[in-house]
Amino acid sequence: MSAAVWLGLADDDPFGVENLPYCAFGQDRFRWTGVRIGDRILNLAAAEGRGLIEAGGAFLGQPTLSRFMAAGRPVWTRVRERLTELLSAARYRESVEPLLVPVADVRLALPFEVADYVDFYSSLEHATNLGKLFRPDGEPLLPNWRHLPVGYHGRAGTVVVSGTEVPRPCGQRRAGDFGPSARLDIEAEVGFVVGVPSQGAVAVDDFREHVFGAVLVNDWSARDLQAWEYQPLGPFLGKSFRTSISPWVVPLDALDAARVPGPPQEPGVLPYLAAGEHYGYDIGLEVSWNGTLVSRPPFGGMYWTPAQQLAHMTVNGAWTRTGDLYASGTVSGPQIEQTGSFIERTWNGARPVLLDDGTTRSFLLDGDTVAISATAPGPGGSRIGFGEVIGTIGCESAGDRRSP
Amino acid sequence: MSAAVWLGLADDDPFGVENLPYCAFGQDRFRWTGVRIGDRILNLAAAEGRGLIEAGGAFLGQPTLSRFMAAGRPVWTRVRERLTELLSAARYRESVEPLLVPVADVRLALPFEVADYVDFYSSLEHATNLGKLFRPDGEPLLPNWRHLPVGYHGRAGTVVVSGTEVPRPCGQRRAGDFGPSARLDIEAEVGFVVGVPSQGAVAVDDFREHVFGAVLVNDWSARDLQAWEYQPLGPFLGKSFRTSISPWVVPLDALDAARVPGPPQEPGVLPYLAAGEHYGYDIGLEVSWNGTLVSRPPFGGMYWTPAQQLAHMTVNGAWTRTGDLYASGTVSGPQIEQTGSFIERTWNGARPVLLDDGTTRSFLLDGDTVAISATAPGPGGSRIGFGEVIGTIGCESAGDRRSP
Repeated sequence: MSAAVWLGLADDDPFGVENLPYCAFGQDRFRWTGVRIGDRILNLAAAEGRGLIEAGGAFLGQPTLSRFMAAGRPVWTRVRERLTELLSAARYRESVEPLLVPVADVRLALPFEVADYVDFYSSLEHATNLGKLFRPDGEPLLPNWRHLPVGYHGRAGTVVVSGTEVPRPCGQRRAGDFGPSARLDIEAEVGFVVGVPSQGAVAVDDFREHVFGAVLVNDWSARDLQAWEYQPLGPFLGKSFRTSISPWVVPLDALDAARVPGPPQEPGVLPYLAAGEHYGYDIGLEVSWNGTLVSRPPFGGMYWTPAQQLAHMTVNGAWTRTGDLYASGTVSGPQIEQTGSFIERTWNGARPVLLDDGTTRSFLLDGDTVAISATAPGPGGSRIGFGEVIGTIGCESAGDRRSP
Repeated sequence: MSAAVWLGLADDDPFGVENLPYCAFGQDRFRWTGVRIGDRILNLAAAEGRGLIEAGGAFLGQPTLSRFMAAGRPVWTRVRERLTELLSAARYRESVEPLLVPVADVRLALPFEVADYVDFYSSLEHATNLGKLFRPDGEPLLPNWRHLPVGYHGRAGTVVVSGTEVPRPCGQRRAGDFGPSARLDIEAEVGFVVGVPSQGAVAVDDFREHVFGAVLVNDWSARDLQAWEYQPLGPFLGKSFRTSISPWVVPLDALDAARVPGPPQEPGVLPYLAAGEHYGYDIGLEVSWNGTLVSRPPFGGMYWTPAQQLAHMTVNGAWTRTGDLYASGTVSGPQIEQTGSFIERTWNGARPVLLDDGTTRSFLLDGDTVAISATAPGPGGSRIGFGEVIGTIGCESAGDRRSP
């Protein structure tokens, strides 16, 4: 099924009817949920209000997606099927067209309330590279890495939507040395969003019953702050200043055609991590630095899958809540042009990248803009777009005004 | 000023009118905010509803303290002054007495919605002890420790109120070894609760404008899970199953008489950590294991103060939100009978403790109950009580049913 002709979508539009990512848009009291089709957004609150969609509750008439996400897979499926119908059949044009608004005309908001934010570390190549750079004298991959998806909790309150300015963080760069980070970096990741909460261990095969969809994540990282602070309890201020996510939550259903077998895991995993079907998603990321494409990280090669991450995160009895966001960790492939952080891409500054304007970069300068985008295979040769997560580095934060 | 005679409080009641800790109580739609006096709770929603308190908004008529906490210090001060008056003057007896309910008759709830949860590591003795136990071959105190308050983010969604059962977590105990934690431990801590949010660095001297009060924290820790997983990104499943807090939020104002000079800090701290007045709080903790007092951790000796922790946590421009909870880290003094974790108290099991029932313990057994209580000096020789945070270890979590 393709979108209705009146929508005027090209066959290769990454926001065709096979995709239908959700969002929240508007400001303050005028905020609604929406679904993207082409370069427009269907106002879901309005569609529900006019009886075009029966979600079975006031799920869609909320300022964010959280209540809809909590409603569970039967509701997600019903709404998606109905949206496909509304946007495919010419007979709905009269009802639907007035509820469409151009993406360019709205302000996109954080699509859901972030409950807990967890960041994994699931690319073998990234963990190996960072090990070499942060611990040059030791074995790059620590003994636990192939046994469990290493992860940690990040700061939920500083997760922001794409487009939000990212102030350069201040902090301790080493003993007695305070100031703005001189090694400001990105981490290109894919994040998964919990819809249906859990009260005990989530079986690895129950992933789809809990996870609503996926977003792009830029886990901004101040490498100097991080290197000085992270032992023994992990990253803290080097990460907590901001984490940016894309405004579009791509439903898991839209990614079915993108499933790829997960990588072989040696040694074999414990039963709680063993899936009936071990799969990842063939999502291709692109990282642009001031408009220059500098990297193409391949998500499909990640060692630990999103289903394994959720099973691990909950195996100790930890609850999940609607809005829990867990990110994959930096996506890096085996080639340097596939790395998802600049510390890898420039090999700690040893190999700066040349931008199209003729300048070179090792780490982020004030005013630099980074955009991470992604697509994945959709049904019937279509492409599923994630849009992008974008951020521009502002000048030093307020913290600097109290620096020595 | 002492409480009204009709309240029948002893002079040394730890919940006299000098204290007045806040709480939330009741269940579901019948949940209210309250303030404790003696062994009773004044229903604040009812007091506001009857015009006894003018909080200047519907702050008190909420199911938790969060909106009141967000209202800021002028409101906190006005309400506290009015409560002191209501509970001190005999002429209010007729209005106040009907609004009092015995603590024993109510179900105490999580007093506020936890936004982000951060755990510090600010006892020199604890950090040294854990360094010796976790990294026996290295220098126990890492190079950064005296330069900044080391901390990390924990899981906000599993912070529970005192009395909630704590299931024994399952997880990987080492390579290929899955099962219930065999080294389940506590960490006795004091937590500080943000009322007024911040959007940039909070100056160390602005601590009192943002922090509403203090609670007791038990940061339950599965040492086997933690030791295997924590490198390089810090503790994760070894901590995230549950964190218990006391139901009483002691207002900072009640702790003024407990202020003590902070410890000398060598090397000297950077300006953003240098307070006009460098102080901690002389809070004496007591840890009971199945009713046997096993430790008396002294909070007054903590190396990093709560004001320094807040300044550090925000110096990178990280926002805080109402309900952010940051805990001190395990409170341990120089003597083994002053340590706030059992891994220290029993020196990794080498010196089990003898309980009053004649049994010995190294780590927690199923059915064990731990209660952490605390008091601090109040004005005029009074004592300020924190009550207690209590938890009983349940049997294995659901996760175990899928174990090998």
